[in-house]
Amino acid sequence: MIEDRIKTATKQIKADLIISNINIVDVFNLECYVSDVAIKDGYFVGIGDYKGEGIIEIDGTGKTIIPGYVDAHVHIESSMVTPIQYSNEILPFGVTSVIADPHEIANVSGVDGIKYMIDMAKYVPLDVYIMLPSCVPATSYERGGAILTAKDLKPLYNEENVIGLAEVMDFPSVLSCNKDMLEKIQNAKERNYTVDGHCSSFNINMLNAYATAGIMTDHEAISGEEMIQRSRRGIHTLVRYGSVCRDLPNILPSINERNHRLLCFSTDDKHIDELTTFGGVNHNVKLAIQGGLDPIIAISIATYNTCACYKLYEKGAIAPGFIADFSIVDNVKDLNILDVYKNGKLVVKNKTLINKISTNICSKPEKLVSSINMKKISKDDLAIDMKGYSKANVIEVINDGIVTKKSIEKVSVNSEGYFEVNVQKDQQKIVVIERHNKTGNIGKGILKGLKLEEGAIATTISHDSHNLIVVGTNDNDMLKAIDAIKQMQGGIVIVNNNEVLASINLEICGLITTDDSRAVIDNLNHVNKMIKKIAPKVEINPLLTLSFMSLVVIPEIKVCERGLFDFSRLDFIDIYSE
Amino acid sequence: MIEDRIKTATKQIKADLIISNINIVDVFNLECYVSDVAIKDGYFVGIGDYKGEGIIEIDGTGKTIIPGYVDAHVHIESSMVTPIQYSNEILPFGVTSVIADPHEIANVSGVDGIKYMIDMAKYVPLDVYIMLPSCVPATSYERGGAILTAKDLKPLYNEENVIGLAEVMDFPSVLSCNKDMLEKIQNAKERNYTVDGHCSSFNINMLNAYATAGIMTDHEAISGEEMIQRSRRGIHTLVRYGSVCRDLPNILPSINERNHRLLCFSTDDKHIDELTTFGGVNHNVKLAIQGGLDPIIAISIATYNTCACYKLYEKGAIAPGFIADFSIVDNVKDLNILDVYKNGKLVVKNKTLINKISTNICSKPEKLVSSINMKKISKDDLAIDMKGYSKANVIEVINDGIVTKKSIEKVSVNSEGYFEVNVQKDQQKIVVIERHNKTGNIGKGILKGLKLEEGAIATTISHDSHNLIVVGTNDNDMLKAIDAIKQMQGGIVIVNNNEVLASINLEICGLITTDDSRAVIDNLNHVNKMIKKIAPKVEINPLLTLSFMSLVVIPEIKVCERGLFDFSRLDFIDIYSE
Repeated sequence: MIEDRIKTATKQIKADLIISNINIVDVFNLECYVSDVAIKDGYFVGIGDYKGEGIIEIDGTGKTIIPGYVDAHVHIESSMVTPIQYSNEILPFGVTSVIADPHEIANVSGVDGIKYMIDMAKYVPLDVYIMLPSCVPATSYERGGAILTAKDLKPLYNEENVIGLAEVMDFPSVLSCNKDMLEKIQNAKERNYTVDGHCSSFNINMLNAYATAGIMTDHEAISGEEMIQRSRRGIHTLVRYGSVCRDLPNILPSINERNHRLLCFSTDDKHIDELTTFGGVNHNVKLAIQGGLDPIIAISIATYNTCACYKLYEKGAIAPGFIADFSIVDNVKDLNILDVYKNGKLVVKNKTLINKISTNICSKPEKLVSSINMKKISKDDLAIDMKGYSKANVIEVINDGIVTKKSIEKVSVNSEGYFEVNVQKDQQKIVVIERHNKTGNIGKGILKGLKLEEGAIATTISHDSHNLIVVGTNDNDMLKAIDAIKQMQGGIVIVNNNEVLASINLEICGLITTDDSRAVIDNLNHVNKMIKKIAPKVEINPLLTLSFMSLVVIPEIKVCERGLFDFSRLDFIDIYSE
Repeated sequence: MIEDRIKTATKQIKADLIISNINIVDVFNLECYVSDVAIKDGYFVGIGDYKGEGIIEIDGTGKTIIPGYVDAHVHIESSMVTPIQYSNEILPFGVTSVIADPHEIANVSGVDGIKYMIDMAKYVPLDVYIMLPSCVPATSYERGGAILTAKDLKPLYNEENVIGLAEVMDFPSVLSCNKDMLEKIQNAKERNYTVDGHCSSFNINMLNAYATAGIMTDHEAISGEEMIQRSRRGIHTLVRYGSVCRDLPNILPSINERNHRLLCFSTDDKHIDELTTFGGVNHNVKLAIQGGLDPIIAISIATYNTCACYKLYEKGAIAPGFIADFSIVDNVKDLNILDVYKNGKLVVKNKTLINKISTNICSKPEKLVSSINMKKISKDDLAIDMKGYSKANVIEVINDGIVTKKSIEKVSVNSEGYFEVNVQKDQQKIVVIERHNKTGNIGKGILKGLKLEEGAIATTISHDSHNLIVVGTNDNDMLKAIDAIKQMQGGIVIVNNNEVLASINLEICGLITTDDSRAVIDNLNHVNKMIKKIAPKVEINPLLTLSFMSLVVIPEIKVCERGLFDFSRLDFIDIYSE
């Protein structure tokens, strides 16, 4: 009660907790100073001389208090677990809030998927703020499990912890002033909510158009120059370091005392193994400091700056009137998280989570655990008719394994005129099967770069529509993999010689599971081990690569359930080539 | 229309205005850079290469563009004119928005007074944002023209341009958790509005209590130390330089690159003569730069910082998506304002206001122009009965003329036992007459320091309840002054030998006038000249001093309509003394 907090501030009644003589990181003045901190009813109520004024008192001598970290942009689904396991894993790293975009689950199950993430988040101490997915489907070229219009999203603003509109990636809609897209942005702005952008390799005109439209952030900046271009236009850069994209080191040298105000830290996508090893934005902070950034500024970026950007007015600082989300650390340089407090309550003691939330409380809505809705697939469905040609447009994986190159290659063709996998030439078959609406759509292509020597890999994590994507050296193993995925109602399988070598069950929408995160990691490690077995020479991460082979908005050639897609033409092309 | 602005950003349609090759002050990165600026429908829509893309094009070569200044806290009434004259006078100084607290007029006419300021502001290009007066009356010790409860204020949040709750000066109510005061704060916070504080000589506990209560600003900080104390608690300091209080020079040395984020500039009170000579917060900016502050930081404080503090999200920067309120200046060091644009339209060309709004459009609501409601006053009413004593508690004006000292002095007493003015000893009679509700209340006292040698001075500007306050050397002239004020229905008069030497007509609530501001200045100059005539030896500003003699919240001894008030006792005392 506010009355009690005011009376605690003025020492008329006792504080719940006093941390005395502790080094305070002051994100307002970008300095540190030593004082006592008083906490009451989940809020900071005083900084000053409060020794003897608390029901519980802790001596903070020699330690430092920092605000809880806030991840400015994350897709929790990328961890393959629900907000419950995510909260259990992230809290010990001092991350007390995340701004989550349930874009993946929304592409599978629409509003039901979004509501599921909101509901699961209610069980955890971690504050999971939700940005409403603005682009479902991500593009008009592929068919996902849902289509979300402005009209669909609007009522969701009444849900608890919904605070804005998530990454507007469909830039053609913005630039062409698509009515529904502008309405989505307007609905967020009317509520003074933040609208996230997605400005991958934008030119200046596009940045100006986005800023004019009221889009306020971008997490796709890859250089200091791009960061400054955005800041000059009032666009906040969410400096990213995750499992997929690691832009922070390239941006870091350009960050300084004068220009950090519009900067936040983001992970975007963090896989369960890296999440449990390195945590979330806490790692961005550490890397920034190791890279030479003033620790106080690095901390401010991950706390106060992010809260200011997303209008979380009572968060991100150690000050009276602010919510008492904070960590006790050894010092501002090493930032080893010792204890973590959420709403004034101890949740992590000496690096250990006090109360691990069990996933038994996870609901399993029928709609979400039966997300595989596809026609029966036969060998014939997988056949690639070369129409008498011997050359083909091959998807060649390059660089980090997400961008591809369109290379025209001679391929093996059997007596009936169909493409045949050639392991020596690393030419495998890849198919994408529509799995949401039983349309029977199957897109096919030839993939180079995964270096499969035998067997097949299948996954229902396939950005952004998350259809079933399968790569293999032979049709039997591919069919077996497809069948296994169907049995699991979504997940990842590795098959060889008609046998499932490894699998991860992702029963919720084919994206996440309610299994214990440690079990998920074991499965993932086993999956990766089995991949090594069927593709011993591969250097990139085949699972990650496979999950991006359908993302047609990324160059240069991809395959979705409607066929082979050429990014440069923004159109579908034939597999065979002159 | 947003569609047109987006299409202008991408050069699909022409901009209304292009300013090419101009030096841009970037408040986000705290730097300057040269580029073209594109404006459409009152908004910035692009920064980049826009030459040839505008209907109107201006070559900005060699000049600098800065955002319009925003005054974080001002009482327009202190200028003695309406928002119309205020706008005419302030725009040429590059001030395009003010955050106004109609505290004075509210103390006279309550909601009607507040609505009058809101209505008048609708006629002017200047954006006048309104903070709702939180403390009417300012204290429980005096009777003003109105009492405003949380219930009275709440509906006013629906009025255009109302953006928060103004200076919470009644700290005892906050510290004692007064229900109505906490409700006022809660009603503002519910709307995510800013709540202003008033933390004059607060100790740390009081600051903690205010921050805990959700009070976010203070304009009473008088030193760098006080500024840091506030910043550490997330309280924004509005660094003040006005006609009454000039704190900026004392705070300035403590402002730097790292701690300026929570700072704004404010004038609080600016009298018409200084307003027309020096302007508003533009002067704070100039003084800060002259005092050695980085010009870009000084400009940011008066623009982006203030807009961030008051959540004016689309203001305070030269960037697409922001409202095109800006000035063209010679350079960032001298900051001579050449042209001023409001919502993308030229309002000041080469230092000259293009369209001076006439005060003829001012309404004169019956209630507001008949604010003098008092009983007839006779000589007997002015008599001070010394009850046989020869010593008295005298109000001695010290320092700046606002703070007083309680000095016990021997005074002249006539044969009937009544106090007699003694010019040699500088002991004058001062009376405060309740003028709102015809209660007949008259407070009396003996004043030392104005050095009146003859005549009388009367004014209805008498903080904060604005009763009629009169000081004089003889009862006849005092009665004449009272009568003259009655005739004018409020204002300022100088009387000598039963003759009105000079006067200022403040027909609106006895605080402001619809007269042309230049005429007001002439009257004010004449008033001051006549004061010099009846008080040739005075050094302080007698008008200013007189208007603060009723403000009982300031030490050490004051007089209000209920009598002589002792600040140290927080109680009324007798005039006579043992």
